[in-house]
Amino acid sequence: MNTFGKRFRCTTFGESHGRALGVVIDGCPPKIPLDESDIQPILDRRRPGTSDLVSLRREADRVEILSGVFEGRTTGAPIAMIVWNEDIRPSDYEDLREVFRPGHADYTYLARYGWRDHRGGGRSSGRETVARVAAGAVAMKCLGIRGITIQARVSGIHGASSRDAMEMEIVRARDRGDSVGGVVEIRVKGCPAGLGDPVFDKLDARLAYALMGIGAVKGVEIGEGFRAALLYGSENNDQMGKDGFTSNHAGGILGGISNGNEITIRIAVKPTPSISLPQQTIDIHGAEREIRIEGRHDPCIVPRVLPVAEAMTALVILDALLERDAYEAFRAHASG
Amino acid sequence: MNTFGKRFRCTTFGESHGRALGVVIDGCPPKIPLDESDIQPILDRRRPGTSDLVSLRREADRVEILSGVFEGRTTGAPIAMIVWNEDIRPSDYEDLREVFRPGHADYTYLARYGWRDHRGGGRSSGRETVARVAAGAVAMKCLGIRGITIQARVSGIHGASSRDAMEMEIVRARDRGDSVGGVVEIRVKGCPAGLGDPVFDKLDARLAYALMGIGAVKGVEIGEGFRAALLYGSENNDQMGKDGFTSNHAGGILGGISNGNEITIRIAVKPTPSISLPQQTIDIHGAEREIRIEGRHDPCIVPRVLPVAEAMTALVILDALLERDAYEAFRAHASG
Amino acid sequence: MNTFGKRFRCTTFGESHGRALGVVIDGCPPKIPLDESDIQPILDRRRPGTSDLVSLRREADRVEILSGVFEGRTTGAPIAMIVWNEDIRPSDYEDLREVFRPGHADYTYLARYGWRDHRGGGRSSGRETVARVAAGAVAMKCLGIRGITIQARVSGIHGASSRDAMEMEIVRARDRGDSVGGVVEIRVKGCPAGLGDPVFDKLDARLAYALMGIGAVKGVEIGEGFRAALLYGSENNDQMGKDGFTSNHAGGILGGISNGNEITIRIAVKPTPSISLPQQTIDIHGAEREIRIEGRHDPCIVPRVLPVAEAMTALVILDALLERDAYEAFRAHASG
Amino acid sequence: MNTFGKRFRCTTFGESHGRALGVVIDGCPPKIPLDESDIQPILDRRRPGTSDLVSLRREADRVEILSGVFEGRTTGAPIAMIVWNEDIRPSDYEDLREVFRPGHADYTYLARYGWRDHRGGGRSSGRETVARVAAGAVAMKCLGIRGITIQARVSGIHGASSRDAMEMEIVRARDRGDSVGGVVEIRVKGCPAGLGDPVFDKLDARLAYALMGIGAVKGVEIGEGFRAALLYGSENNDQMGKDGFTSNHAGGILGGISNGNEITIRIAVKPTPSISLPQQTIDIHGAEREIRIEGRHDPCIVPRVLPVAEAMTALVILDALLERDAYEAFRAHASG
Repeated sequence: MNTFGKRFRCTTFGESHGRALGVVIDGCPPKIPLDESDIQPILDRRRPGTSDLVSLRREADRVEILSGVFEGRTTGAPIAMIVWNEDIRPSDYEDLREVFRPGHADYTYLARYGWRDHRGGGRSSGRETVARVAAGAVAMKCLGIRGITIQARVSGIHGASSRDAMEMEIVRARDRGDSVGGVVEIRVKGCPAGLGDPVFDKLDARLAYALMGIGAVKGVEIGEGFRAALLYGSENNDQMGKDGFTSNHAGGILGGISNGNEITIRIAVKPTPSISLPQQTIDIHGAEREIRIEGRHDPCIVPRVLPVAEAMTALVILDALLERDAYEAFRAHASG
Repeated sequence: MNTFGKRFRCTTFGESHGRALGVVIDGCPPKIPLDESDIQPILDRRRPGTSDLVSLRREADRVEILSGVFEGRTTGAPIAMIVWNEDIRPSDYEDLREVFRPGHADYTYLARYGWRDHRGGGRSSGRETVARVAAGAVAMKCLGIRGITIQARVSGIHGASSRDAMEMEIVRARDRGDSVGGVVEIRVKGCPAGLGDPVFDKLDARLAYALMGIGAVKGVEIGEGFRAALLYGSENNDQMGKDGFTSNHAGGILGGISNGNEITIRIAVKPTPSISLPQQTIDIHGAEREIRIEGRHDPCIVPRVLPVAEAMTALVILDALLERDAYEAFRAHASG
Repeated sequence: MNTFGKRFRCTTFGESHGRALGVVIDGCPPKIPLDESDIQPILDRRRPGTSDLVSLRREADRVEILSGVFEGRTTGAPIAMIVWNEDIRPSDYEDLREVFRPGHADYTYLARYGWRDHRGGGRSSGRETVARVAAGAVAMKCLGIRGITIQARVSGIHGASSRDAMEMEIVRARDRGDSVGGVVEIRVKGCPAGLGDPVFDKLDARLAYALMGIGAVKGVEIGEGFRAALLYGSENNDQMGKDGFTSNHAGGILGGISNGNEITIRIAVKPTPSISLPQQTIDIHGAEREIRIEGRHDPCIVPRVLPVAEAMTALVILDALLERDAYEAFRAHASG
Repeated sequence: MNTFGKRFRCTTFGESHGRALGVVIDGCPPKIPLDESDIQPILDRRRPGTSDLVSLRREADRVEILSGVFEGRTTGAPIAMIVWNEDIRPSDYEDLREVFRPGHADYTYLARYGWRDHRGGGRSSGRETVARVAAGAVAMKCLGIRGITIQARVSGIHGASSRDAMEMEIVRARDRGDSVGGVVEIRVKGCPAGLGDPVFDKLDARLAYALMGIGAVKGVEIGEGFRAALLYGSENNDQMGKDGFTSNHAGGILGGISNGNEITIRIAVKPTPSISLPQQTIDIHGAEREIRIEGRHDPCIVPRVLPVAEAMTALVILDALLERDAYEAFRAHASG
């Protein structure tokens, strides 16, 4: 299943070391102003190689819109976008063809499909998020028209929370040949009350699905999250006054539906599994092997998760917005 | 959206104080032995009123299978199950018709649909989980045939983790007219490797969706969860030897696909919002009101979440299993 | 797959000789006035036993709304409706347990599911349409609010097209122990232009799916249908003037999207396969058998198809309407 | 909605005069041998310009596989395929920017989306079928592994049925500046019994949806189709003997499920609406206009419909096959 969303549906394709990555967006409202310049700057944020601290693969990652846009505006037809893979060195991976890298999807992918494209993780590579970010950029353009904005920030790296301490943790990990993870916080501003469904398709359930669906994410919290388990009801409830809610422990979602407050989410990002320290593993024949992952790897991918987390959040919010719109429209016509 | 699942699809209906709750299961494999006795004992576990410590509404919650089962086995046709509401006292709720209860979906439900059935939370009531638990019982029956079992337990209440301390926290909350939440741990045993998809439909993403979709759940973690953000890659990676993985930090899921290990999940349950302490709120006209929630309420719903969490987990695992089966079958036929 | 529709989704359940038939509607707009009296008269139209000419099974088919309606209006929650089976005589069918009736789904159902509920066709029975008609009645209520009406009529029986001649064909078939089919014409009035999608989800494709999905329907035509294959382009094109289209060869749909004209559809209904004349068949062991279908059977089910055809058409039109509404609403908000 | 299918899902994109057309296939079983040479010959069959009688636009229509195939076999990842538009002359269409061509989707597309890419019909162009045919070629490759083949043929043009008479009808239409339609017959051989569902997702309903979703198709029949309305039940029923069915009036589908016989379908193709004879129409301002469609147009597109009809049929059959496989696999594992 490589399609995300019910109304604003994104279908992604492409492998780390294949010819291209891309996405087809179906269900984008027509007449939205859109061109590549709305997408490229956001894509650039997820690109590696922008500082000493992150992976060295250098790619232009130039996005091209192939369809669905005419004279600078969306037409309602599917919007296909493509990014060609350029800096491919599959030979880097030849010695990984038969080995399962610890912490990677190599073993499980084989169990799922019976065989696999081993080059750089294939479809399981973090590079796949290029397509998500491109789709998210279109969603954000739509949300902007409605006054909704989304922002993610790194709130912790390996337990550190100040900018300097976080950087030091990354440097220390890199020098050890090891890696570190962290926590990302996402905030949605301007979201109207009434998005989401009361039962299965709760807005928080959809956000959890979207964000846990990012590789390396191992936990998702809304509002107080796990801290809510430590509070009394009287502490955790958000009371209301003439000007609305007087607190936001709920993180902007009540009973699965947005309440008009800022939506606040936290996600846990595991340390990247590619490390150069020696690790024990097996190969596809079951033989034990020692492995050291060489090559271009980030000691910490947390900063690169930010645009992906924003993109996935945007896809969820827009989908829920389009859904509620339909009811409103029905009522508006009926009463007219 | 009141349907859950792609292959084993459950559509639920019913309100807290309506005539009945129910579910229609579509996509259940045929020839599975099934009757009400497979479902009733599991439903009974979620029923309130089984101890002093929980809500006093007493309902038989007798499940009836209306279709899809013939001579004791499933036929492949949709399985409809119904539970009639009996102990309904809508007058209990008449004074809540125009008031938004803090921590409840009252306000957001109104924003979503323009009006609402205020009686006991209507569709947003925890009572809606009757239908999920019934559906989950059928899923568990199917999983049992394949040797997969699911078990949830309370791992903490308001910070306490021993049985006595947890009970004391609940008693103290009840005596204060307040409430407490906690943490539930879910374990899936016997799950084969290869379930789940590498991109959007990761098995952990689906579990997060399923479990965050339970009312009162505010956080979901897989394996180390948020603790993974504090570990080095070398600590968090699960290495492999001849007998498989030598640890299980990943919680049984790698790259979104099950790896054959036990799947471990933790969810945060907020304190129930219905408390008898006075709270500030507003009514539908915007006027400020003080509210005390009287009547039958649990000071802690965490124990009652267990069968619901097991049910939702079962629905996800079975769905993913049916999905992988299809590929295997295609290959088996092709090579035959 | 027992769910129909994308936005207004109907999930049906129940077998001919099971305990009940029913439907759960998900996605109905809130605040629509609705009670059983909107549905019962339409259900009554599909009931057998209303003249000498049709099947003798007598059932009250009393519909009950179990959820989703509060104080006479829809709430946005799923609407469950149920009809109990009363006049069940499963023993009528005991001798059919192991025999495949020609023209029925007995053989194919076994091939699909590996076994079957043989009583009266089980899930494959025409009785299953009770649930569709109930759902369609709710859809028609919604469409009525928007000024859209749907009407089906019998346009031919076994080649005859006048009322008297059609009746005579039915009588003659009954007297022979045989059966006849016919043609039904459906017209949708008041449908606005702009419903349907240009590629896969063309409005005519969805209508064809909906109507070919009625048991016994073997052909579907829109507008000129098969006659279009005999016309020149200059004859078949609908030209336009100041007052709109000057003809309606297209049957109200152009490029898969409604054009504001009346939508006209014709469907072919095969003669009911249950006949008392002797037929050759086999049983589940492969042995040859002669069969005569005794009991309560219609010599012609065409008149009973009318409410079902209207219901399925209503479900399609409403679904497409809700879909277009969403875009309009997005635009309205964006420009506001 | 630009996605077709439930398990083998094809999402298409691209406009007649945009940069490219393409499709992303999700859900293709892994390990199927596949490269461009499986697709190109089938694509070539739908290309215009291969005889005097059809449209003159000349395009290489060279298909490229961008993802999902590794070392000559499918991996289970989405298969993206692209065809670049080369012979684009948008200026041909500049004078059609504001005019509604009779019989085309111009007017309805505007009603649906509020504006449109007028160049060559944009998304509504027959050129969109390039993507369907490419997807269908992959489906046919999968079906071939299971011994299923699909073949379409022209069975009539403007009432003529011999090869010479059909050609003469096309020539006559071209010389008049007019166009003609016809009838296409599709046959599926080797399809096992048991594909399709008994209620909404009948195999014939899905075929009707798939084929009516081809532009210009106005009618679909299975087996006897509309002729069934003229037969007695005793004539239309297919009786059974030791060697299976003794006739095939049903066209291989009973109660919505394949019965193991050849599946036979007929579709009506309307005359292409682009004719050079003068026609009355209006423009987007409502002013009356006379129009003559100049340029590259087929007097008859029926032959070019063949590969599209085969492709859509293949998509339906494979989808239903994958669905039944899942149940079989579940049973196989359970009993093992």
